[in-house]
Amino acid sequence: MSESYEQSYLYRLRHSAAHLMAQAVTELYPGAKLAIGPPIENGFYYDIDFPEPLKEEDLPKIEAKMKELSKLDQRIERTEVSRVEAKALILDDSIPSMGGAVAEYKLQLLDAIPAGETISFYNQQRTDREGKLHRFLDLCRGPHVDTTKEIKNYKLMSLAGAYWRGDVKNKQLTRIYGTAFETPEELEAHLHMLEEAAKRDHRKLGKELGLFMFSARVGTGLPLWLPKGATLRMVMTDFLQKEQVKRGYEPVVTPQIASIRLYEKSGHIITFKDKLFPFMEDEEKETYILKPMNCPFHIEIYQSQMRSYRELPVRYAEFGTVHRYEQSGEVTGILRARGFTQDDAHLFVRPDQLLEEFIGVVELTKVVLQKLGLTDFKVRVGTKDPNSDKYVGHDDNWALATKAIEDACKQMGMEYFISPGDAAFYGPKLDLIIKDALGRDWQMGTVQVDYNLPERFELEYTGEDSKPHRPIMIHRAPFGSLERMIGLLTEQYAGAFPFWLSPVQISVLAIADRHNDAAMALADKLRDVIYDTRNLRVTVDDRRETLGKKIREAQLQKTPYMLILGDRGLEEGTIGVRSREDGDLGEMTVEEFLDSLGA
Amino acid sequence: MSESYEQSYLYRLRHSAAHLMAQAVTELYPGAKLAIGPPIENGFYYDIDFPEPLKEEDLPKIEAKMKELSKLDQRIERTEVSRVEAKALILDDSIPSMGGAVAEYKLQLLDAIPAGETISFYNQQRTDREGKLHRFLDLCRGPHVDTTKEIKNYKLMSLAGAYWRGDVKNKQLTRIYGTAFETPEELEAHLHMLEEAAKRDHRKLGKELGLFMFSARVGTGLPLWLPKGATLRMVMTDFLQKEQVKRGYEPVVTPQIASIRLYEKSGHIITFKDKLFPFMEDEEKETYILKPMNCPFHIEIYQSQMRSYRELPVRYAEFGTVHRYEQSGEVTGILRARGFTQDDAHLFVRPDQLLEEFIGVVELTKVVLQKLGLTDFKVRVGTKDPNSDKYVGHDDNWALATKAIEDACKQMGMEYFISPGDAAFYGPKLDLIIKDALGRDWQMGTVQVDYNLPERFELEYTGEDSKPHRPIMIHRAPFGSLERMIGLLTEQYAGAFPFWLSPVQISVLAIADRHNDAAMALADKLRDVIYDTRNLRVTVDDRRETLGKKIREAQLQKTPYMLILGDRGLEEGTIGVRSREDGDLGEMTVEEFLDSLGA
Repeated sequence: MSESYEQSYLYRLRHSAAHLMAQAVTELYPGAKLAIGPPIENGFYYDIDFPEPLKEEDLPKIEAKMKELSKLDQRIERTEVSRVEAKALILDDSIPSMGGAVAEYKLQLLDAIPAGETISFYNQQRTDREGKLHRFLDLCRGPHVDTTKEIKNYKLMSLAGAYWRGDVKNKQLTRIYGTAFETPEELEAHLHMLEEAAKRDHRKLGKELGLFMFSARVGTGLPLWLPKGATLRMVMTDFLQKEQVKRGYEPVVTPQIASIRLYEKSGHIITFKDKLFPFMEDEEKETYILKPMNCPFHIEIYQSQMRSYRELPVRYAEFGTVHRYEQSGEVTGILRARGFTQDDAHLFVRPDQLLEEFIGVVELTKVVLQKLGLTDFKVRVGTKDPNSDKYVGHDDNWALATKAIEDACKQMGMEYFISPGDAAFYGPKLDLIIKDALGRDWQMGTVQVDYNLPERFELEYTGEDSKPHRPIMIHRAPFGSLERMIGLLTEQYAGAFPFWLSPVQISVLAIADRHNDAAMALADKLRDVIYDTRNLRVTVDDRRETLGKKIREAQLQKTPYMLILGDRGLEEGTIGVRSREDGDLGEMTVEEFLDSLGA
Repeated sequence: MSESYEQSYLYRLRHSAAHLMAQAVTELYPGAKLAIGPPIENGFYYDIDFPEPLKEEDLPKIEAKMKELSKLDQRIERTEVSRVEAKALILDDSIPSMGGAVAEYKLQLLDAIPAGETISFYNQQRTDREGKLHRFLDLCRGPHVDTTKEIKNYKLMSLAGAYWRGDVKNKQLTRIYGTAFETPEELEAHLHMLEEAAKRDHRKLGKELGLFMFSARVGTGLPLWLPKGATLRMVMTDFLQKEQVKRGYEPVVTPQIASIRLYEKSGHIITFKDKLFPFMEDEEKETYILKPMNCPFHIEIYQSQMRSYRELPVRYAEFGTVHRYEQSGEVTGILRARGFTQDDAHLFVRPDQLLEEFIGVVELTKVVLQKLGLTDFKVRVGTKDPNSDKYVGHDDNWALATKAIEDACKQMGMEYFISPGDAAFYGPKLDLIIKDALGRDWQMGTVQVDYNLPERFELEYTGEDSKPHRPIMIHRAPFGSLERMIGLLTEQYAGAFPFWLSPVQISVLAIADRHNDAAMALADKLRDVIYDTRNLRVTVDDRRETLGKKIREAQLQKTPYMLILGDRGLEEGTIGVRSREDGDLGEMTVEEFLDSLGA
């Protein structure tokens, strides 16, 4: 959320929609106690303590009541009061949104307002047919729109449980999520986007397409990659490895665990403690931890021999599996897993090489994203939060590293924005924020400049002057992680991956049993063809099913091409070609089909 | 050691050599107490309690004394005695190898001989110039050679510490290792082989060639793969993956850790307990372990959906990293590491498919070993030790599985031998025992038949009869593990890997600085060439060193080809080609060189 959103009309509108919803609730559910109801990124919510549990089915009733109340053109008015007056208002039995039993949450909120700060209420009220006044009053900082009539394009979305003040020791309240927009078109577009996002949810597609699975016996956040998902990983690592070899990266492979001594030296034991899995303590008194980051291992390799200035830059690349102990509530499919594989690399560079190498890394990252079809991104430079102590290293190192990143951006003519607090604990970083097909932002490829780990590990190289010098490290991961990137790509393409990435590229469909042998032979022939660096990935559907069913299933599996083999094909030496996107492409020879692929 | 060795003359000769050594020791070191001295696979040893520590430098002195005693042609005579007589002999002060203070170990050995068993001593004696009789007597089952004169071709090899009766709570004795042969030629050949083996030691070559390293901060048995070693791994996995895809294997990727519930179900928690790393216990009360074997994960994937008889066989392949907590004394470089990567696969087959699939797996294993140049092997069928309770599953399953393996061997016309006690805990297995270039045996590629894990996990498929049936599992790993296979290959080839495997295949050597640009350009051109499935792996030596030094270093790095670029090359468009094995191959064009590679 940018500052401008918080100052926007939309923000006020959503805030007022939250009040309107609360007003509807207090009229429909006497005894419901209001807690807190702010606007949020894509809408608003209100946490409410209901006397009886609320169900999703009840939401239309609340929406209908909101409509009725909205139309009444109630003025939304602010009053500022003293603390004594505020308390009296909250305890006023005649106002359903305040008073009596309802008071407990609002009184606590009042107590939390620091002395000297303005205390304000927002009021909206109506007179019913019998002439009775219904007041809705809420302790609220505002601001709001002028009248409930402005709140026209809204929708209540879902229910969730939420602890009062976010503390599990407190009572669990019911959170009602809603959204609101200025125009019906915007609301419609947003709801459509959500519907699309649900269809594209990588967890749903991952299951349907056979990419990955989870198992309770294995554990939370630990994906098992099924054949198609494992193939996707292989294609992606092949591609990146090739790009890296071209650019002078060298592969390394490092252990999954290390003695805690390694991570004491690196500082992870303290600064990364919350994300570490429980330790493994053995009888010989050596304690191991599951690797949370690859950097200290690459540092050990750098340090295993004397380095001359002529050897630098040294670029170690590893598809390194790491484990981070995310809270189980935060684990989200493969987007946020507990075990995942980074496309990691660490560059050890001389100060005079930093700018060029940093630019090289950003260029590689852009090549990678381009190839994956992710071309809409912005650049964020994450710097140190000046008010936090979660960082290591001297301020002058931080300043140097931050300057290097900004210089590189400028030299590349790349626009960027600064985001304080988004640095790694050892240095600032550049992230590419990708906008996906549904307009959502994803923080992906990351490049970091690090003066601090080389200092902690006392890394050196011998300069042209025969004296020891300290190298600078660049940490980078164009994909971020294989898991996260595959999650994004699955949603970006709604599972219909580009041909080069597709786990199954071609499905040969036999029309009848008597074509099965020919279908197998055709598949074998195609499998001998090299595309990119690997052989074409081909399956055969030789089940006793109708062609229509076979096509439908290949289509559901998002297979780029279906090759249909029947009597005509056997006689004339041609195949019927269907594409996932364009349907029937007609009869052609195998050679013509391969030509059309560029294979 | 086969039975025939234990019945051989060589075995007796080595046993007698152990006695001769003990005789020499008792004459040279009064007060040395003899413990036990058997023949072993390649020689013999004797464990002795010395009054003062013995040093390697003392061995020639003992050898010289042995020579003197051997020449005397002492008859080696057996006497059988009663237990009472035996005790009297052991306590006899006049015999240095027995009696008095020396008695403690021999008395214990006597006590360990079961009642009713024959008690025998072996005696050899000499009379010195002064006419004094020196007797050497040893409590020993025998048999021995007839006279010390037969012991001519021997060598004392090394010292080691050894606890009395192998128990760390007992006193540490000095073990002297020696070897003996019938002919001087055989002794010479053996010593030469040992010298060669030391030169080829994978730990030494691994360091010299930059394949892998260890770090105290990381931990025992946890190799870090350097760029060349990581490249070797990549080439090997590429090759195997390709062979597997051809044969219908599907790749999967599974987590590094799992809840202990998974391994409770599989039985590893009990039967494999000694090899497990310490557990990770988290606050949510979930306990994780580092993966010791991949099988339960592949089972979870099999079980994640309904399976029809038409789908089988299902073949899941994974280069799966596993961890086993070997005792630190048993860890040996990468041959026995604590973290290593298996070229694992599990096949889920119907009973009617078992024979064909098992044969297919053995054929693949043979293809793999052939490609790696390991063509001399024998086949061992490891069965259940009837006296052990470390196995899971019913006897009838074991019988079926063992029969399947033997049937497959017979059908393939493959000779095999049975080795009771060499089964996995869940089923019998076939191992290929490779004889390496130095004639040493290595247990490598393994194939196992398993009726038991499918039962424990209640695996099923729906048969043609629409009823549930139980599949059988085949576990297999042609390499065994990448680590172990790379260790073997390093020793087999003394680091001079075949061209297709070499981490660096070609080194371009610039004669002078002015040829550096052309050398870089040549290397880039070569790197564009695809060999097998990957681009050629080429380095450039552009240092300011003499050509002689550059060649020497490329030779030490065992680089298959050196391409030498100088003025003549630049003028005439040719390069000087040197091969690692054959030296100078003369001038040729780049195209001629590539043709010679078959690239």
